[in-house]
Amino acid sequence: MEETFVPLRGIKNDLRGRLMCYKQDWTGGLCTGIRILAPTTYIFFASAIPVISFGEQLERNTDGVITAVQTLASTALCGIIHSIIGGQPLLILGVAEPTVLMYTFMFNFAKDRADLGRGLFLAWTGWVCVWTAFLLFLLSILGACSIINRFTRLAGELFGLLIAMLFMQQAIKGLVDEFRIPKRENPKALEFIPSWRFANGMFALVLSFGLLLTALRSRKARSWRYGAGWLRGFIADYGVPLMILVWTGVSYIPSGSVPKGIPRRLFSPNPWSPGAYENWTVIKDMPHVPFLYILGAFIPATMIAVLYYFDHSVASQLAQQKEFNLRKPPSFHYDLLLLGFLTLLCGLVGIPPSNGVIPQSPMHTKCLATLKHQLLRNRLVATARQSMSQNSSLSQVYSNMQDAYQQMQTPLIYQEQSARGLKELKDSTIQLASSMGNIDAPVDESVFDIEKEIDDLLPVEVKEQRLSNLLQALMVGGCVGAMPFLKKIPTSVLWGYFAFMAIESLPGNQFWERILLLFTAPSRRYKVLEKYHATFVETVPFKTITWFTLFQTAYLLVCFGITWIPIAGVLFPMMIMLLVPVRQYILPKLFKGAHLTDLDAAEYEESPAIPFNLAMEVDIGMRRVESGEILDDMVTRSRGEIKHMNSPKITSSSGTPTTDLRGLSSPRFSEKAYSPRISELRQEISPQPGGRGGPISPRTGEIRPSKLGEGAASK
Amino acid sequence: MEETFVPLRGIKNDLRGRLMCYKQDWTGGLCTGIRILAPTTYIFFASAIPVISFGEQLERNTDGVITAVQTLASTALCGIIHSIIGGQPLLILGVAEPTVLMYTFMFNFAKDRADLGRGLFLAWTGWVCVWTAFLLFLLSILGACSIINRFTRLAGELFGLLIAMLFMQQAIKGLVDEFRIPKRENPKALEFIPSWRFANGMFALVLSFGLLLTALRSRKARSWRYGAGWLRGFIADYGVPLMILVWTGVSYIPSGSVPKGIPRRLFSPNPWSPGAYENWTVIKDMPHVPFLYILGAFIPATMIAVLYYFDHSVASQLAQQKEFNLRKPPSFHYDLLLLGFLTLLCGLVGIPPSNGVIPQSPMHTKCLATLKHQLLRNRLVATARQSMSQNSSLSQVYSNMQDAYQQMQTPLIYQEQSARGLKELKDSTIQLASSMGNIDAPVDESVFDIEKEIDDLLPVEVKEQRLSNLLQALMVGGCVGAMPFLKKIPTSVLWGYFAFMAIESLPGNQFWERILLLFTAPSRRYKVLEKYHATFVETVPFKTITWFTLFQTAYLLVCFGITWIPIAGVLFPMMIMLLVPVRQYILPKLFKGAHLTDLDAAEYEESPAIPFNLAMEVDIGMRRVESGEILDDMVTRSRGEIKHMNSPKITSSSGTPTTDLRGLSSPRFSEKAYSPRISELRQEISPQPGGRGGPISPRTGEIRPSKLGEGAASK
Repeated sequence: MEETFVPLRGIKNDLRGRLMCYKQDWTGGLCTGIRILAPTTYIFFASAIPVISFGEQLERNTDGVITAVQTLASTALCGIIHSIIGGQPLLILGVAEPTVLMYTFMFNFAKDRADLGRGLFLAWTGWVCVWTAFLLFLLSILGACSIINRFTRLAGELFGLLIAMLFMQQAIKGLVDEFRIPKRENPKALEFIPSWRFANGMFALVLSFGLLLTALRSRKARSWRYGAGWLRGFIADYGVPLMILVWTGVSYIPSGSVPKGIPRRLFSPNPWSPGAYENWTVIKDMPHVPFLYILGAFIPATMIAVLYYFDHSVASQLAQQKEFNLRKPPSFHYDLLLLGFLTLLCGLVGIPPSNGVIPQSPMHTKCLATLKHQLLRNRLVATARQSMSQNSSLSQVYSNMQDAYQQMQTPLIYQEQSARGLKELKDSTIQLASSMGNIDAPVDESVFDIEKEIDDLLPVEVKEQRLSNLLQALMVGGCVGAMPFLKKIPTSVLWGYFAFMAIESLPGNQFWERILLLFTAPSRRYKVLEKYHATFVETVPFKTITWFTLFQTAYLLVCFGITWIPIAGVLFPMMIMLLVPVRQYILPKLFKGAHLTDLDAAEYEESPAIPFNLAMEVDIGMRRVESGEILDDMVTRSRGEIKHMNSPKITSSSGTPTTDLRGLSSPRFSEKAYSPRISELRQEISPQPGGRGGPISPRTGEIRPSKLGEGAASK
Repeated sequence: MEETFVPLRGIKNDLRGRLMCYKQDWTGGLCTGIRILAPTTYIFFASAIPVISFGEQLERNTDGVITAVQTLASTALCGIIHSIIGGQPLLILGVAEPTVLMYTFMFNFAKDRADLGRGLFLAWTGWVCVWTAFLLFLLSILGACSIINRFTRLAGELFGLLIAMLFMQQAIKGLVDEFRIPKRENPKALEFIPSWRFANGMFALVLSFGLLLTALRSRKARSWRYGAGWLRGFIADYGVPLMILVWTGVSYIPSGSVPKGIPRRLFSPNPWSPGAYENWTVIKDMPHVPFLYILGAFIPATMIAVLYYFDHSVASQLAQQKEFNLRKPPSFHYDLLLLGFLTLLCGLVGIPPSNGVIPQSPMHTKCLATLKHQLLRNRLVATARQSMSQNSSLSQVYSNMQDAYQQMQTPLIYQEQSARGLKELKDSTIQLASSMGNIDAPVDESVFDIEKEIDDLLPVEVKEQRLSNLLQALMVGGCVGAMPFLKKIPTSVLWGYFAFMAIESLPGNQFWERILLLFTAPSRRYKVLEKYHATFVETVPFKTITWFTLFQTAYLLVCFGITWIPIAGVLFPMMIMLLVPVRQYILPKLFKGAHLTDLDAAEYEESPAIPFNLAMEVDIGMRRVESGEILDDMVTRSRGEIKHMNSPKITSSSGTPTTDLRGLSSPRFSEKAYSPRISELRQEISPQPGGRGGPISPRTGEIRPSKLGEGAASK
């Protein structure tokens, strides 16, 4: 995206692009039929559960002024509107942690003011939203999003880790509170006598850790050895909501022998209970807010505007990583404009506004890619089978498959991309031919495993449409009605879920991985090379990595510290934005350009960009999009960056000294432990029988550099 | 061992053999100096903690007649005596779960008898021990141990799994009881009101699961990425006792806000408190036991004798697996004789007798191998450094190292074994020479990584001596004095430890692994091949494995069921022994000989035995004895059997169709998913750049058969 600040141009471009495919957004979704429900429900859970947790959190922080009802309402309302008239339908909207934080700050400020207080809090936030909306309008009209690429990995990942820390903090605070008497409750109640309070706390520990551990386990289900494939897939996709059900069930087991209040459960009122909807009429009170506070509302407004501008754009960025090969154009400016309207709307009905959320948005794209792959696959398999039944040659089979593939293409906005998809098919045909010797011989399934073959051929494509987003938003709306059931969930389970979200957000965050690297024993650092790792691990000296990481950590702690300051905490988004100039003007003075490029590539710095490796990408994409594991990878691991690694093809097939040395060339691997060894050479020359080194090396790290490839190939 | 039943011959042979090296048993131990303390403390914890748990268990089952004091005393007493005058000093003695079980049965029988009852229970068990001792004398004198090889893997592993089940059952029962009011306690006490009882139960859940999970984690410490090597090693070795300390500490955190009895802790009396030592004078009461019961004592006695004969011999077997390359002779008959005396002694002083315990005994050998390796290593490294400082050629360096190695050899009982050790050194020298091109050029550390090199050269050897066994027994005795401290351990922590022991005993048990195999999704079975796996996985048809496993499982359940029968449960050892004829006469009728050989090799059936692969074994042994990981493997994984696997040298270096097919030759891998694939061939021919398949395949199991080797090499 070129940096243009001509008013409205950005918005115009976005609208033009999206309108071209608006109709297809719906038809494409509808033609998928029932299958669309899988990604829909998946995203529904992913976006509903946190929103409920946040509602609970807000409910405590705002003395019940805002509850899960409001957060769910906001998420549903904004989601529905965005999915219908929004720009990028892959973007998922919801009430996010930073919003909760800002509202908490504002409430703490307001509740002590005599002329504002709890009563006028919502009215005042109404004004804050008005200002915020105004600022968002300005930003989008002036084309602020065209500098989106200045939010480098540095800022994005620091923000991500900050969110994770806030989640974890909330989980711990919540658990500790389970041992205490909640403010609003009657301390005389039976369940608050010391013994039951202690019992409740211990029960909470069991429930929350139970959820945390089982949820983390279930995410890995796809690689389990036991159970049928579909079951493992199901558990991996729905494990977390499933576990919430399970542990909620567990929480009822002792209900016979414990008083009603144990364990503590969600406290939100039913939407139809009196007082729950007083906020809807908040617009009536807005005029009563003292003028000074209306002006003062501008300060938190700027913060929220900055926050949303950043958060919304980054979420949208992550939902459109290039690995996904999206066919339809982005829409940063227009979406920001719409966000302005949504904020205004939410403010006026007294509910916290929603914005683009991480990681739900990328998750959404991911499961749509899985869907698209299944559709393409079934179609091509059918075609191949049919043409093989007329025992045609391989080349014929492929040309037929290409036609079928053609027909299934969505209207192409970006011509070259589609070309790529086909090119891949062609290449493979040729390779295949050469490998088969004779290309014109008829083939049958014995030599030609269609399904496998097609899995290898298909590039990553995403079923881009608006239906899944709309449906999930509607389902979130449905939750408001389902409040009585939601209230059966123990709070402790939610604390466990907070911890789960914090931990789940870490892998793939290079900042986090660098922190871990600092704690890795030197003798084990090579293990990082075995895994799917970022470029810098091989190209940047360890000392540089250390300093860069220490700087980032210090900055993070400052940000985190600021959120603790009672009122001034409202300023923490400033710190995030401040990172942009810091990255652009200060860091280059401290670090070598090349190193900085690997540690934190910035498009505006021209630098030898890592070539976008098609073969590898499609390959990665293809290996098993079906099971979706790889997509987990692309999204949670490599945030839109193509990682490099020793190609197993080379290393595993040779293990020659050359490879050794190549593997060692990286500066940080000159430790004695990695000098090429006579013993290695000996082994190369005289292979010994038996599982030599096989079962041992990996677990113990005694892998030879020459085996790094293998390591990678199966770690 | 040839099957000879000439009275006393077995004992004579044993004594002759052991006397030859008796002096060296002590001198060898003493010359090790302070280093001996590492294995000593390691084994001390491994044998003390279970004994305490069993004491607690007996204390409940026998209304406090027998407590941890008695079990500790028995373990210490028998341990000291055995370590001094016993035959095989690697064998660790202790009160074992089956003993606890038998004593429970006997108590349940005795307590209801008017003319026996709680009062005369110990006196009666005295008589049982008399009979048992008598039977053990007979067995050892008649050379029963020479048929030790009829206890095949079938029986041994079934027994192992039975023990595991009993442990787990105890853990669960114990946890459930934490929610109940203990029999002997005053139900009016504050800590038994419903609320505190519930709190106590929940606290118990937290503590026991906390211990279980952290302990399991700590065992894997060696392969952690974080922390210095020595720290990881320390945690891996001492993690479990460490965790018991930690969680005992945790149990005191809420002590301010909970009544004294929460959580419940060990109940054993101090040895000096009145009543604790009434059992020592039990011999006075023995005459008062009615004659009929003295006769009746013969029935449990036979069971215990059978049990000890089996348990003691198997424990000794496992402590002397051939991977350990022991230099000193075994001593089955003499040890059984001594066990007879020990049983008699224990019976007369009214404490439950001890016998050889699993897994402590093999653990003992293992950590002594680690010790020996460190000693050899340091010595050789020094030698090599020195001779290289006189820049001598490689061949010189090696000859010097060989001399040093020579000097450190223990007096050789088995000549050919030592020869092997040397041979290995020679071979390596030659291979090395050929790989270096010129053997006479001086070498320096840049090309020649001494320590690594030596790790690769040294064969597994064990520091065979009596000191460590004696010391650990003395330390166990010290525990009796330390009772006041031991009583600070919460019972819930012990339940967690029971579960831990049960789970730890599973890996490497082929019976268990076959059960898992039955539950493995067909599409993932190849994953077993990637790991260090037993022969049968590749050679026996899946259907046969299934039936064999089902039979074994049914048998196991019957045994387990029998232990539930109130009094007749005493007969369960019979079922184990019954397996010997079943295996020998019935199974061969049901299964093909070749299959049976792979599933359950029996020396008495002549069959193409798997060649004892020296290169592989030494290699496995050597890869990193130092860190001991591999030895974990040898003991907990391959119970004395050498496993086969696709040699990574071949598979990883080729991945040619040949390999594919070879990898597929195994009957169970003919599923469609594994038919050789065009796509594979294509990949072989046109390697693609980038981390193709690298990071993905493994986690997702989409590894090509051609990659099995790699999988093995780094899974």
